[in-house]
Amino acid sequence: MSRVLKAGILGATGTVGQRFILLLSEHPGFSIHALGASPRSAGKTYIKATKWKMSQPIPADVREKVVLTCEPQDLFKECDVVFSGLDADVAGEIEMAFLKADLALFSNAKNYRTHEEVPLIVPMANPSHFDLLTHQRAKHQLSKGFLVTNANCSTSGLVVPLKALQDAFGPLSKIMVTTMQAVSGAGYPGVSSLDIMDNVVPFIGGEESKMEWETLKILGGMNQELTGFELLKSTKVSATCNRVPVIDGHTECVSIEFERRPAPSVEEVIKVLENYRTEAQELGCHSAPEHAIIVSRDEDRPQPRLDRENGRGYSVTVGRVRECNVFDIKLTLLVHNTILGAAGSGVLLAELAQKKGLIV
Amino acid sequence: MSRVLKAGILGATGTVGQRFILLLSEHPGFSIHALGASPRSAGKTYIKATKWKMSQPIPADVREKVVLTCEPQDLFKECDVVFSGLDADVAGEIEMAFLKADLALFSNAKNYRTHEEVPLIVPMANPSHFDLLTHQRAKHQLSKGFLVTNANCSTSGLVVPLKALQDAFGPLSKIMVTTMQAVSGAGYPGVSSLDIMDNVVPFIGGEESKMEWETLKILGGMNQELTGFELLKSTKVSATCNRVPVIDGHTECVSIEFERRPAPSVEEVIKVLENYRTEAQELGCHSAPEHAIIVSRDEDRPQPRLDRENGRGYSVTVGRVRECNVFDIKLTLLVHNTILGAAGSGVLLAELAQKKGLIV
Amino acid sequence: MSRVLKAGILGATGTVGQRFILLLSEHPGFSIHALGASPRSAGKTYIKATKWKMSQPIPADVREKVVLTCEPQDLFKECDVVFSGLDADVAGEIEMAFLKADLALFSNAKNYRTHEEVPLIVPMANPSHFDLLTHQRAKHQLSKGFLVTNANCSTSGLVVPLKALQDAFGPLSKIMVTTMQAVSGAGYPGVSSLDIMDNVVPFIGGEESKMEWETLKILGGMNQELTGFELLKSTKVSATCNRVPVIDGHTECVSIEFERRPAPSVEEVIKVLENYRTEAQELGCHSAPEHAIIVSRDEDRPQPRLDRENGRGYSVTVGRVRECNVFDIKLTLLVHNTILGAAGSGVLLAELAQKKGLIV
Amino acid sequence: MSRVLKAGILGATGTVGQRFILLLSEHPGFSIHALGASPRSAGKTYIKATKWKMSQPIPADVREKVVLTCEPQDLFKECDVVFSGLDADVAGEIEMAFLKADLALFSNAKNYRTHEEVPLIVPMANPSHFDLLTHQRAKHQLSKGFLVTNANCSTSGLVVPLKALQDAFGPLSKIMVTTMQAVSGAGYPGVSSLDIMDNVVPFIGGEESKMEWETLKILGGMNQELTGFELLKSTKVSATCNRVPVIDGHTECVSIEFERRPAPSVEEVIKVLENYRTEAQELGCHSAPEHAIIVSRDEDRPQPRLDRENGRGYSVTVGRVRECNVFDIKLTLLVHNTILGAAGSGVLLAELAQKKGLIV
Repeated sequence: MSRVLKAGILGATGTVGQRFILLLSEHPGFSIHALGASPRSAGKTYIKATKWKMSQPIPADVREKVVLTCEPQDLFKECDVVFSGLDADVAGEIEMAFLKADLALFSNAKNYRTHEEVPLIVPMANPSHFDLLTHQRAKHQLSKGFLVTNANCSTSGLVVPLKALQDAFGPLSKIMVTTMQAVSGAGYPGVSSLDIMDNVVPFIGGEESKMEWETLKILGGMNQELTGFELLKSTKVSATCNRVPVIDGHTECVSIEFERRPAPSVEEVIKVLENYRTEAQELGCHSAPEHAIIVSRDEDRPQPRLDRENGRGYSVTVGRVRECNVFDIKLTLLVHNTILGAAGSGVLLAELAQKKGLIV
Repeated sequence: MSRVLKAGILGATGTVGQRFILLLSEHPGFSIHALGASPRSAGKTYIKATKWKMSQPIPADVREKVVLTCEPQDLFKECDVVFSGLDADVAGEIEMAFLKADLALFSNAKNYRTHEEVPLIVPMANPSHFDLLTHQRAKHQLSKGFLVTNANCSTSGLVVPLKALQDAFGPLSKIMVTTMQAVSGAGYPGVSSLDIMDNVVPFIGGEESKMEWETLKILGGMNQELTGFELLKSTKVSATCNRVPVIDGHTECVSIEFERRPAPSVEEVIKVLENYRTEAQELGCHSAPEHAIIVSRDEDRPQPRLDRENGRGYSVTVGRVRECNVFDIKLTLLVHNTILGAAGSGVLLAELAQKKGLIV
Repeated sequence: MSRVLKAGILGATGTVGQRFILLLSEHPGFSIHALGASPRSAGKTYIKATKWKMSQPIPADVREKVVLTCEPQDLFKECDVVFSGLDADVAGEIEMAFLKADLALFSNAKNYRTHEEVPLIVPMANPSHFDLLTHQRAKHQLSKGFLVTNANCSTSGLVVPLKALQDAFGPLSKIMVTTMQAVSGAGYPGVSSLDIMDNVVPFIGGEESKMEWETLKILGGMNQELTGFELLKSTKVSATCNRVPVIDGHTECVSIEFERRPAPSVEEVIKVLENYRTEAQELGCHSAPEHAIIVSRDEDRPQPRLDRENGRGYSVTVGRVRECNVFDIKLTLLVHNTILGAAGSGVLLAELAQKKGLIV
Repeated sequence: MSRVLKAGILGATGTVGQRFILLLSEHPGFSIHALGASPRSAGKTYIKATKWKMSQPIPADVREKVVLTCEPQDLFKECDVVFSGLDADVAGEIEMAFLKADLALFSNAKNYRTHEEVPLIVPMANPSHFDLLTHQRAKHQLSKGFLVTNANCSTSGLVVPLKALQDAFGPLSKIMVTTMQAVSGAGYPGVSSLDIMDNVVPFIGGEESKMEWETLKILGGMNQELTGFELLKSTKVSATCNRVPVIDGHTECVSIEFERRPAPSVEEVIKVLENYRTEAQELGCHSAPEHAIIVSRDEDRPQPRLDRENGRGYSVTVGRVRECNVFDIKLTLLVHNTILGAAGSGVLLAELAQKKGLIV
């Protein structure tokens, strides 16, 4: 069995940080070693520094841990892996400092997702993109450090079935997706109750372009030298993002057109989704769900309240696979936005990296 | 000024019936003359027969009115117009009996929407379809009676801007729409709180096919003899319908492809929507809103809680008009599902019919 | 008819300020003359300075008004009445400056409610407390200015039926009240959706002591010289305050013990509440509802969504009047927290003041 | 270790029955042996007979079990224990038939709670009431069967801290309680979304009298011969019950007056609640939570969404312990209404009965 990894958490008091703490504290492969937050929180015990918002209590051994500033020193220097749940306005500088300090960093922030030398990986979609890290390390003269980003919460759900379909049926030509996203995706305090009760907010700043662009990088390939990413060119993605009064779980209505003629049938699509297996399952990653994708044949599923915990929040649930009048296939998917869509992706990425021998 | 019309309401105790009562009781052009409901309710006073669910109180002069059975006799025979808010399982027979009794009937039920000789009219989209009534009367040997249906609540919002765009820019080739529909659309008791709190239900039985088909009839034309409808043939519509925890107001995310190349620009589309005027405005119908379509340029509108009362619930609010990566234009619209999407359409249809000289 | 009063609004961009704007813009007795807000907003047009959150649109003639700082000069000096919706952290100084500038001020802030020379008036409970203003003016050497405060939103609902009962049956010995308060009471952004969706928060900072203390001042009297208030001494009040997922409307469950033995019966209590008339009705105040208290005999009312608009938000709705196993009488009441419980009280106080000849 | 008990479930397709299935299927001490439901469901597999509404999936070994009618024969005759989640309208006859068939029956229905020979037991409040079963068996000439009822969901939460306080400080003279109850308490479909979204319903039929009466039986004693219950005579209870938009978890605001003078202090009360241990803990019952009562010292707890899973839904969480202006002590408590307040109580009662040697 693998050794237990010392884990640091940046942005430990935020909502993504809180989820990292829950996932790691129950995890046999990690020990929580360092907690970093803003200077305002640093020096306080975790329980005093945090407005805890999870429905499970703060793990006992975390309550009295002293929060540090987000600098690559002391306890953080001893970490085998560092998870970042930092806000975008501070993530850029801090993450770069950690990378330069030769630390292995998994970031949930958007800042480096678009960088040419930074992999943007959804663990059950494009784990092959880890292969670029050799180039990244060479470029930054690192021996054990690296920086990998996970995707936006909505993208994280979308690309899993898309990858399964692209692998099986070849290129997708057109993708139209409309999301209904949970409030937890906006952090805390995040969305005001006056804005969302008995309401829908048909706009989430920056979200649509993130979904459209990230999908093209994740579903795309790398050049032969493994030194750069090649975005999909023939696939068009159009996203519309809405906020709805749901606590956890993003629902996404997707229409897909395949290049292949004739397009695959509904049953062929269902079969591919049901049988989709990824490296996370093959390598026996601890957090990998038994099924990357769970397909429901009930006419009214997936539903966030009933399906978000599927696969302990790591599975994508797909339902309503049917023909589309305009494209080929329509389906509705659900992703737990703070597990598979955020902290859980980071944890699963770290497990994959360890299995692949990248954690030195 | 026009004379005050005696109005009957079928299905008067249901949620659509309750809305008819509110709209008509405040309306200078109608007096509520007959209330019909199931045999279980008949013979009781309205207040005793009804589980009233509107946030405004029952109009004083309706409270003690005695509810009748839904038969074309007595008080109903004296009505100038009859509005039907009946459930589909009983609407078929009852409405046919009223039509045969030579009564002018406006139905919110789905039963006759697909019939060849029955106009399906959204008042601010295709009022020209009233022209088929001459043929309908001839066929059924009626002197003053007729049957007109209004559209499904979601369709009622969608077709108003689509008609404006089709009029201005020619045929639409592809329409993709994803809805987020309010619970009031399912009647009372309708959607269980356990099904919708902290949740989305990604399915509404029969709704998607209704939206797809009704749109083609409403945006289509009639044959030269005005004896039949000609559905759009070159337009493809794909609808995905969801139920969300909102009380009133359906939100719809729409992507549109035009036949015309180059497609109209975002600004051209906005201008057409803003300037769209319909017969309801031209003829000075009492319930017609000043603007059939209200275009918001705020990035996060329309929102059901803030915009559903626009134009007293008779306007369609459109926002987020922008380019689509896959089609030409994306926009989000909002329709008050129980006013413009149901009872309000019936009332406005009756006003139009009167202005057009169809109410004898 | 009375002359139209020039009205100023302090804190005009906040949620209470927005409600003042809606109420005054529809009011024949007032013209909105001056809008004050923080230095950050001053100099901007109202539409640019404000995140408008009401479901009705911004009144047309307010949209482009330029927001001023909250100082007693220029346009504010010309105002006949000034309404303050300021936050407590700035209200103290600003309101004192306006008072010293001899302006007639109606404040929704808590700062001066406990002051010996400042009346705390719920317009349909203790309008007699206006009589202290002669003393207040003398003390501050004012000719036309004065400062009157309205009560906390929860108190504002509670004291109306309590006053009716105290007037009819003599002293109340014990009052136990548990509230379920709407999120709009916390302003904007106020309560986070993550805190209140699928949840109850059993605590509102400072609210319980406010309800307990304010009730004793409002239901109490004045000394013979009309120079000071005499709080109730023999009445004990215990309040428990909760926040629930409701947008507008505070619901309060009340148990009451009378000093009088035998205690009044349920029917006697209902009769007194139904027949309760106040100076606001007697003097014909424009905003006074026909009934200060509306008593429902339905077993499941009042409900916030169905009853908050009763009397245009100015009536208190009381239901479930019944015997209590421990005290004498239990009842449940509902108050629209941003109308009768805040801005509406201010407007009604100004109408009363004008009728009483206090607006010079 | 104890032997594994064969368990039957009556009303297995309802919401309480579904919770019984979840609790028992994860429980090492029970095997699900028989599932009973209405004749309409009987003969179908469980998955076909049920509209499953739990957020966890149907246990695999239950999905294909065939549902039986609710008669004391065949598989049900083989059961060591039978749990009833039947509706009150059918529970009376069926449960009596099972009792007469000499089966050990734990009922969640209200029908027999008030019977003189039927214990009404909240497992962590009055397990001593099991002692009456000797008399019950004698009377009905049973060798191994008996009937025990658990309390109403709201009562189940209330009496746990009350019993702790009564044990420590002697009789309670007055108890005033106001509840805010979750929609799951009304079953499925239960509360309509139109009734509860953005709303509070201040009435739950029969609930207040149940809370008032059950508390007196549970906190009361038995006669010396252990043949009858003696209800509390000097304690007065007044309950007000409300439905709020919460999925699971009843919140209750309680004021308590003690007979003892001086009354215990806040700190004394907290200490007693924190240290309260019951037979369920002493006997090592599998489902007994470590703490019957969890006391929170945070000012804004308990909250249903954050605290309902405390002790896996078996603990009562108490917060806001403070002085009351009218009585002695106020506190707010939270109980998971479908676990401790319903099915979980039944399971814990069965564990207690087994430990006490009552399951033959």
